[in-house]
Amino acid sequence: MTEKPGERIDDLQYGGLKIIQNPAYFCFGTDSVLLAAFTRIKKGETVADLGSGGGILSILLGGKNPAARIYALEIQEALAELARRSVEMNGLLNVKVVRGDLKEAHRLLPRCQAVICNPPYDRPGTGKLSASESCRLARHEILCTFADVARAAGRLLGDGGRFYCINRAERLAELAVTLKEHHLQPKELRFIHADILSPAKYLLLLAVKNGGPGLRVLKPLIVYDSDGNYTAEVQTIYTGGK
Amino acid sequence: MTEKPGERIDDLQYGGLKIIQNPAYFCFGTDSVLLAAFTRIKKGETVADLGSGGGILSILLGGKNPAARIYALEIQEALAELARRSVEMNGLLNVKVVRGDLKEAHRLLPRCQAVICNPPYDRPGTGKLSASESCRLARHEILCTFADVARAAGRLLGDGGRFYCINRAERLAELAVTLKEHHLQPKELRFIHADILSPAKYLLLLAVKNGGPGLRVLKPLIVYDSDGNYTAEVQTIYTGGK
Repeated sequence: MTEKPGERIDDLQYGGLKIIQNPAYFCFGTDSVLLAAFTRIKKGETVADLGSGGGILSILLGGKNPAARIYALEIQEALAELARRSVEMNGLLNVKVVRGDLKEAHRLLPRCQAVICNPPYDRPGTGKLSASESCRLARHEILCTFADVARAAGRLLGDGGRFYCINRAERLAELAVTLKEHHLQPKELRFIHADILSPAKYLLLLAVKNGGPGLRVLKPLIVYDSDGNYTAEVQTIYTGGK
Repeated sequence: MTEKPGERIDDLQYGGLKIIQNPAYFCFGTDSVLLAAFTRIKKGETVADLGSGGGILSILLGGKNPAARIYALEIQEALAELARRSVEMNGLLNVKVVRGDLKEAHRLLPRCQAVICNPPYDRPGTGKLSASESCRLARHEILCTFADVARAAGRLLGDGGRFYCINRAERLAELAVTLKEHHLQPKELRFIHADILSPAKYLLLLAVKNGGPGLRVLKPLIVYDSDGNYTAEVQTIYTGGK
């Protein structure tokens, strides 16, 4: 048996991929699925998933890109162990889970062509209160700040390397400043709105190491239509483009 | 007769406001109308319009806000003179046109509660080629850069003062960095998309002098519907909310 007491196995609705989750820790949300859909990985690339939690991003990207090598770096041993079992359950030989601090990523991982991260969004003391210690660490900037993530990405990537992340839309201005400090040039930005009449809640971002100027602000990603159903685009993302 | 040979008078579709334009110089576009609609001025405020060109923004805001005092600062004498006649034609006693360089705005104008600017978008040598010298100066960063505009706004505003501007969406990242350098905190951002399926072309921005963190990325402003007609919102803006 792959899952342990208190755990459950969720179907990722993509190529038969599954993930082991433990509600006592942090369970992935829509944000990870949207970030995975936004990320483009090419054959033969080496990719780092910084702060991989239970491994959702690495499993989705590893399943979709069998010819890419993915390193899932996670500081919490319980989550790294969960991710390891999920990777094994899916038979993903191209995904390797590494336990470690992303501040040490440049020592723990090889040089990468792409770095992805679904980082903690909130400063300690702000945002949603999280029940467990594990959730607090995943949601709040306790173990790492966005500047730590940007620094780690900047160190792992060579010129032209891509950094994909998601964050709260309200943090856009400071993200732009921090990325510049780490020589990551924003090249694509996509805002996620619950519906067409609401302010953006999240942003998806692609930044390129030492990239030239010029940013594409893509068409907005609208999650719900006026009837409260998923839009066609989000339905397509949730079924893995099928 | 108010207009001179080669000039024309355009109806601004708002409260009977009109503007004198000379196609040999720079004629205003949709961007000015959208920026005017985005800007909120309160009674009794002093407002600077930096690089006012033919005065479109100052005339729209002056007509809409009779209890605000608006300074239109323009470096090109021919445009400042045109703006002066347009202001007079509209009987706007609350709009004063000042000829001068925005780099000297802090010496030429009083302390303001709001600064608005439809600045040149393009670096010299990029963007649309402009036929006339006057257009080149209005469209390209020849006489001033965005950093000059941000510095001027930062000097005119006290803490909590508001800076409204429009620019190309692709310049967002560098704008965020430049605004921070001048203690202008982005608080509201609205992207303008030709239609819901296209990347954003322009952005509308409100930044607050020494404002706290937290940015609202508002619902997208969509110009055309799927039939190629103006959306209801843009129609409403063009008829001044009537």
